[in-house]
Amino acid sequence: MHNERTYHMSLEDFRRHGHAVVDWIADYYARIESLPVLSRAKPGELRAALPPGPPPHGEPFEAMLADVDRLILPGITHWQSPNFFAFFPANASPPAILGELLSAGFGVQGMLWATSPACTELETHVLDWVAQMLDLPSAFRSASGLGGGVIQDSASGAALCAVVAARERVTGGAVNAKGANGKLVAYVSTQTHSSVEKAVKIAGIGKENLRLIDVDERFSMRPEALSDRINEDRKAGLVPFFVCATVGTTSSTAIDPVRAIGEICQKEKIWLHVDGAMAGTAALCPEFRSLHDGLELADSYAFNPHKWMFTNFDCDCFFVADKKALITALTILPEYLRNQATESGAVIDYRDWQVSLGRRFRSLKLWFVIRHYGIEGLQYHVRQHVALAQGFAGWVEADRRFELAVRPPLNLVCFRLRAGDEVNQKLLDDLNASGELYLTHTRLSGKLTLRLCVGQTTTERRHVEQAWARIREAADRLLAGRTTGSVGTDTPLP
Amino acid sequence: MHNERTYHMSLEDFRRHGHAVVDWIADYYARIESLPVLSRAKPGELRAALPPGPPPHGEPFEAMLADVDRLILPGITHWQSPNFFAFFPANASPPAILGELLSAGFGVQGMLWATSPACTELETHVLDWVAQMLDLPSAFRSASGLGGGVIQDSASGAALCAVVAARERVTGGAVNAKGANGKLVAYVSTQTHSSVEKAVKIAGIGKENLRLIDVDERFSMRPEALSDRINEDRKAGLVPFFVCATVGTTSSTAIDPVRAIGEICQKEKIWLHVDGAMAGTAALCPEFRSLHDGLELADSYAFNPHKWMFTNFDCDCFFVADKKALITALTILPEYLRNQATESGAVIDYRDWQVSLGRRFRSLKLWFVIRHYGIEGLQYHVRQHVALAQGFAGWVEADRRFELAVRPPLNLVCFRLRAGDEVNQKLLDDLNASGELYLTHTRLSGKLTLRLCVGQTTTERRHVEQAWARIREAADRLLAGRTTGSVGTDTPLP
Repeated sequence: MHNERTYHMSLEDFRRHGHAVVDWIADYYARIESLPVLSRAKPGELRAALPPGPPPHGEPFEAMLADVDRLILPGITHWQSPNFFAFFPANASPPAILGELLSAGFGVQGMLWATSPACTELETHVLDWVAQMLDLPSAFRSASGLGGGVIQDSASGAALCAVVAARERVTGGAVNAKGANGKLVAYVSTQTHSSVEKAVKIAGIGKENLRLIDVDERFSMRPEALSDRINEDRKAGLVPFFVCATVGTTSSTAIDPVRAIGEICQKEKIWLHVDGAMAGTAALCPEFRSLHDGLELADSYAFNPHKWMFTNFDCDCFFVADKKALITALTILPEYLRNQATESGAVIDYRDWQVSLGRRFRSLKLWFVIRHYGIEGLQYHVRQHVALAQGFAGWVEADRRFELAVRPPLNLVCFRLRAGDEVNQKLLDDLNASGELYLTHTRLSGKLTLRLCVGQTTTERRHVEQAWARIREAADRLLAGRTTGSVGTDTPLP
Repeated sequence: MHNERTYHMSLEDFRRHGHAVVDWIADYYARIESLPVLSRAKPGELRAALPPGPPPHGEPFEAMLADVDRLILPGITHWQSPNFFAFFPANASPPAILGELLSAGFGVQGMLWATSPACTELETHVLDWVAQMLDLPSAFRSASGLGGGVIQDSASGAALCAVVAARERVTGGAVNAKGANGKLVAYVSTQTHSSVEKAVKIAGIGKENLRLIDVDERFSMRPEALSDRINEDRKAGLVPFFVCATVGTTSSTAIDPVRAIGEICQKEKIWLHVDGAMAGTAALCPEFRSLHDGLELADSYAFNPHKWMFTNFDCDCFFVADKKALITALTILPEYLRNQATESGAVIDYRDWQVSLGRRFRSLKLWFVIRHYGIEGLQYHVRQHVALAQGFAGWVEADRRFELAVRPPLNLVCFRLRAGDEVNQKLLDDLNASGELYLTHTRLSGKLTLRLCVGQTTTERRHVEQAWARIREAADRLLAGRTTGSVGTDTPLP
């Protein structure tokens, strides 16, 4: 209960309720496999169960926690379940959760160095660690004196900052001053994440000035198609200013050829942003680092520890090779934010590295994760996840009723029944309705394709084996009475 | 320690360490008044104390928590100290911290309704509660069927969404399609927060197309100056599309006349965004609701429970009267996000209400805060903070060496010594160096002005009294040997 005079929760009660919430989370993880992965809630169900208006008087904390069990839990799709194979993962871990808790406890704003020096310096430092761990080009490290890293809310936020920095660099600040002019052109592949299209729209560039470059049979951007299109646009009097290459696309983890694209961008003086939102994490392991080949030609790079590195959302690591370009595009300094440290030029003020002014202490959780697992612990899990996905792909290939849509480069397997979209949709719906696993889909070469991504913190071999057993059983039921293997293509895989 | 096979922290260890972090936070709050409010760290100090590279092997959690004490704490500016009077508050509270913890534990993504129905529905519902609590116009409630609320990361993010929605409404989607054209014009006052200028730049409108409208003697926007400027711009062939009125400016909590501005916007068909980032919370109390007079004429409204409503950052409540205008401007639907619930049209997918795709379960903490305090508890603190600030203003007025820069409408007092900028700067620096309180400054009517904002969760009368005692003592030392009251103006207050 609260203090009767001030309504505050006493520190004694905070300890007690805090321990209860920690225990609630531990209990949740202990039983998470018993819960249906995809929520079975119906639209409006939760709202109908909640009081229509706010409480006039305070309520005991126990009542809230009981409502979490009774009302909230049935409406949760369990992203932290080891049987969650949908989308890309958004994995968390105990040290990350405790880092987030501590950050909430401090409750500091990191907009300026002065408003909590540790918030800024730990972030800069840990992002240098990350650059070392992934063996990123030296220009992305703060030690280079030119570039450095910052935590963004998401790869979407990073993409928007990259687009705006590129826009201002190519126009010498003219768009910030006078507005956009409809002449700037950006380039992505047909497989690039929708967040770049969104960024291009928000930044006033316009979708008609976003070119979707063709991909090869592995769904990687074709550099010669990019080059051709740039030439065409230049001839039309337009100004190419931004290319996004993706290292691990959302549909199929296709890897764009960063070096070939980077060479074009260098020659053409175009900002190259590389989006490694999920797959970038693989570069923790030397044997996967070839996916970053050519990254020294990029102006900016982003990947999300909140996807595949056990750090709960939000934690996108965004690196730039030339911080001045970013800061010049985003800086604002009203009188009420002026201070001696900023004027000295000796510190970083991260408000100038992002869209928003306010920011919380997000590096704590990343610091905790890296220190808890160590490089070897993180490498262990990346290797384990990739091996599990590759094993799953082997099982798919060995079953003639199924086909791989493309050979999986890392931890995402794209596959389908050789039986047309309708049957595959039914397969997906049946599996997700079972509650025993959760998959999502995409469309590759025009065909409905199931995606199984292995990247959850606690996913082990037994979960992937169980998923495959459920998939086969569901296929058995669906194909009963049909001649198996009679429908669909049998083309060799790229 | 971690599991030797998988490197994970066991659930038993998570309980143990989790309890320790909760206790650490409770202990921190218990001793927070003994710590210097403004960090005394020097640039680079923390980084020099951290290992240059990431750890190859995992470390015990106890070592991390010890480093938080040893390395992080000296670099913290204590935003949760009751002696923090700087900027605007970013107050947190035990129930909010526990809501954030639970959100991290769930680790769900709320980008789509289907990816956790409870995450979306609780947010819609609690924002309807908030609309009731502040008595916001009915169009802003989801029950209206037209509008509704969403949690944004910050008032900056909300302003950007409002600018983009306004931009697309006035051009019928043409900027999203073809890019900006340099013809659109936005209007703010000279006192509007810098985030709107930043949004206007990011959105490709250009700073030269942002009009800074003159203010009156209370620093409120002059509606007739707005009207004149709109007419002038129309005559020049430009397209006025966006006005931001502020309810409680950052410099001085000036209240723009929303009704008069709204009537102009209605007539001119211009999007009106109202920014009540801090002061909006005051509308919890009927006696302060006049600050929202005319809000039914606004298209969008934002205020931050993470400033003055005990909910840790980030939690900006953003309301729109016509959600279609917002969604149309921001929607993206790639194949991999398609799902039955979305296609049915029966649900909200909040990814279309914000810049980023990903989003965490932020309504949990707001729900906990509202339920813990109840309406009466929140009202109690707003009234208390306003009364303390008004009391402080009275003390300032009673001391002839000081002057108020403007009569404080709510909980922010802007004041100065009648002794010129240099002495006031010295006063500010001396006070902040003492570690006993933290104030920031602004510039009003060209003069350096100290700001004292009362809004911290645990600030009581004794803290404000102590602040005033310290300020007077510092003034005594600074003015020793000078004839008090001999410098500066003595003009009557507005």
